[in-house]
Amino acid sequence: MIELDADQKTPLYEQLYAALADEIRTGQRAPGTPLPGRRTMAAQQGVSVNTVDAAYQMLAAEGLAEPRPRSGFYVQKTYGMLHSRARRARRAPAAPAPQPPAAPQPVYDLSTGSVDTALFPARSWGRIQKELLYQRPELLQRGEMQGDAPLRTQIAEYLSVYRGVECTPEQIVVGAGIEYLLGCLAHLFSDGMAAIENPGYFRTRTVLQNSGIPCTLVDIDREGLPADALEKSGANLCYLTPSHHFPTGVTMPATRRAQLLAWAAARPGRYILEDDYDSEFRFDTRPLPSLQGMAGPDGPVVYLTTFSKSLAPGIRIACMVLPQSLLARYRRDFATYANTVSRFEQQTLCEFMAGGYFTRHLARMRLAYKRRMEAFAAALRAALPGVELDGVHSGLHFLLTLPGAGGERAMVAAAAQQGVRLRGLSEYYLARPELCRADTVVAGYSALKEDDVEKVAQALARAWLS
Amino acid sequence: MIELDADQKTPLYEQLYAALADEIRTGQRAPGTPLPGRRTMAAQQGVSVNTVDAAYQMLAAEGLAEPRPRSGFYVQKTYGMLHSRARRARRAPAAPAPQPPAAPQPVYDLSTGSVDTALFPARSWGRIQKELLYQRPELLQRGEMQGDAPLRTQIAEYLSVYRGVECTPEQIVVGAGIEYLLGCLAHLFSDGMAAIENPGYFRTRTVLQNSGIPCTLVDIDREGLPADALEKSGANLCYLTPSHHFPTGVTMPATRRAQLLAWAAARPGRYILEDDYDSEFRFDTRPLPSLQGMAGPDGPVVYLTTFSKSLAPGIRIACMVLPQSLLARYRRDFATYANTVSRFEQQTLCEFMAGGYFTRHLARMRLAYKRRMEAFAAALRAALPGVELDGVHSGLHFLLTLPGAGGERAMVAAAAQQGVRLRGLSEYYLARPELCRADTVVAGYSALKEDDVEKVAQALARAWLS
Repeated sequence: MIELDADQKTPLYEQLYAALADEIRTGQRAPGTPLPGRRTMAAQQGVSVNTVDAAYQMLAAEGLAEPRPRSGFYVQKTYGMLHSRARRARRAPAAPAPQPPAAPQPVYDLSTGSVDTALFPARSWGRIQKELLYQRPELLQRGEMQGDAPLRTQIAEYLSVYRGVECTPEQIVVGAGIEYLLGCLAHLFSDGMAAIENPGYFRTRTVLQNSGIPCTLVDIDREGLPADALEKSGANLCYLTPSHHFPTGVTMPATRRAQLLAWAAARPGRYILEDDYDSEFRFDTRPLPSLQGMAGPDGPVVYLTTFSKSLAPGIRIACMVLPQSLLARYRRDFATYANTVSRFEQQTLCEFMAGGYFTRHLARMRLAYKRRMEAFAAALRAALPGVELDGVHSGLHFLLTLPGAGGERAMVAAAAQQGVRLRGLSEYYLARPELCRADTVVAGYSALKEDDVEKVAQALARAWLS
Repeated sequence: MIELDADQKTPLYEQLYAALADEIRTGQRAPGTPLPGRRTMAAQQGVSVNTVDAAYQMLAAEGLAEPRPRSGFYVQKTYGMLHSRARRARRAPAAPAPQPPAAPQPVYDLSTGSVDTALFPARSWGRIQKELLYQRPELLQRGEMQGDAPLRTQIAEYLSVYRGVECTPEQIVVGAGIEYLLGCLAHLFSDGMAAIENPGYFRTRTVLQNSGIPCTLVDIDREGLPADALEKSGANLCYLTPSHHFPTGVTMPATRRAQLLAWAAARPGRYILEDDYDSEFRFDTRPLPSLQGMAGPDGPVVYLTTFSKSLAPGIRIACMVLPQSLLARYRRDFATYANTVSRFEQQTLCEFMAGGYFTRHLARMRLAYKRRMEAFAAALRAALPGVELDGVHSGLHFLLTLPGAGGERAMVAAAAQQGVRLRGLSEYYLARPELCRADTVVAGYSALKEDDVEKVAQALARAWLS
């Protein structure tokens, strides 16, 4: 006898279905045996025949029971087989493809991709998300290809005010990460060749090459990528991080920007891909406006930015601003694509921006990260006599140079021994590592807890001075 | 005088910052004018100098004020300019690129991409999501490239039990939609050519062609795509919807499946891309297990499926199962990529599956959709004498043929006049539309409300019989 409760919110047919499904799954009802007739079951349980029928149909629909013509429902014969096969598969998985061995979990993570999760505005974000889930069921349906219009409007306004980007919401494309957007761009530039900064963000090269765009490396100088070397490279595309070069922290001065824009304007089909990945975090002066803004809405610049730093890397939202010259082709070729960002997360971000939470959140993060940077830099200078720190005033990482500590490779290894994970600067040189500044590592502090600042400095002193 | 409230949860420095930011934004504090000295402001407001300093730093960090050495903070000079430029941009947007004219909003939508949002389990989904947001802050960080392992484990188990897919979680790749995953596959098959079913799912052709894979069309027969025509096509890739051919509803019989697997096995480098897009919705018998399961975990099949139908198209989660032969190369080339699905949505789905909600939700949806299909089919047969309905037992759409109603094109137009949006079958013929069955339209009922079933049948009768 199955116990049903008419007072529960769950309908009776679903309660009956759930109880029978359990009995089948646990083997109390053997494969191939008949279920009680609908009238019999209805009488036993004191429910209507329709209720029993609905429960049986659900069992059949899920493959737990099967209807046989003129004979009622039977426990699925193949169920036990499928079930035990699934269990076998769980117990004895096939040999997986080779994976890189997992590095031991570092105690302190100075890599550049993490954020301080304590700064995430979980309360406001969660409240908005919840409201949308209950009040906006239409967000379950497919949205606009470029991203929901209200979010694009918010982003256009934000980029205009804070980054000097000149665009309309129509030029904005929202996507699940810069890598996805670069893949779309690769299609638009399918006969192109891209110049990439050396040292630089190696993921960009990987994505462009995976997408069929050959890449050539151009060495940066103290002002960023030089226009004459770019001209010589033969590339028609140029990927840049002008606000805050990754990973050296160089900010490209206005003259160099003008030279690069002149390069792009000199021939049709030349474009600059401007990655403004962490421009929100500039601690000394207001950042220079974007290259896109200098070039204007019809200029030869595609502006890219991500919310990975300003919100969280686990929430996958990035966007790009297409110049008018690329927009029509993009819309034609991608017309049937679905956007890659969940509409609930798009609209949560939209309301988060529209309500003023986003700029307030950024201001709080800037303050918190600035204080952390200052405390970390002070602790490092105190613990490591002779240390040089570069690029501290912008972004969420800086360069740390310590001559006499055995060289970059030994520094990284010794730091790891002390539980501190960081990368050597030469790891970002995709070619000609001999150009790399010696004895230098990249220290990200975005995931570093304030209480740990002193401990990390001491750990590095143990690693490098003993 | 600014009013601050020490009892609020918002810290005093943030209250002060917010009030000053408002005054600057609204122009009450003019660009270029000095802010009160920190001590003065502290005394005026009855707060500490540190509080004022923190507020001023936030204003500076956000670009609303600027610090001048030995002279204190000033309202940002450029702010008004940037602000008014942004407002100008909002008022007079540049002419957007041409967009297709918006179709008039249909009263009843029989297109195939929508779902009934009333069936979405918002309560359980929302509860899980909320718990994760507050209890699992580590989900804010970057996750695994192929998708979070616990979710892949759930998916592998589900696919094994319900679709006969043979795989380990290591073979699963989670992504923000089939289109994104097809783009990744295109890279792995970069020298390939793909055969596509005709008629078929035209988006697949668009994605593969955009990603550099030439496509050739192969006409299906009554059992799906014929192996001999595939052999003649010269393609090494073959995109199939064997469980439920889109849009005709043909289920590929076992013999044809075996022939196609033999085609793939005959030469190295041949692969079948099996799109199992709506196999959850089969109303008569248990669906045939997947082709992937027939081929085994090392066979030449990539299995693709989406949660767009089983959850919602607005939540962007799909997955593919890579055979071992492709896995190592995939991992190497995409090693540095971030996954495209928000980790909160990944983990919400994971707990939704682990807790048994997913299979229960599917069973409820099957029952609801089955009843709707039966009611809709009955209403159509009653209202449209001579109508033929095909493919009713599977998927969330069927074919409707009505000879004597003026032909497909006239049927679609007349239905639109009556507020019913649907497509003609010939729209899915990417070539040789002369092969298309005459007088036939595709009727999706997934977004059709139960109360509207009769009204739609009557509207179609007005459209086609008068």
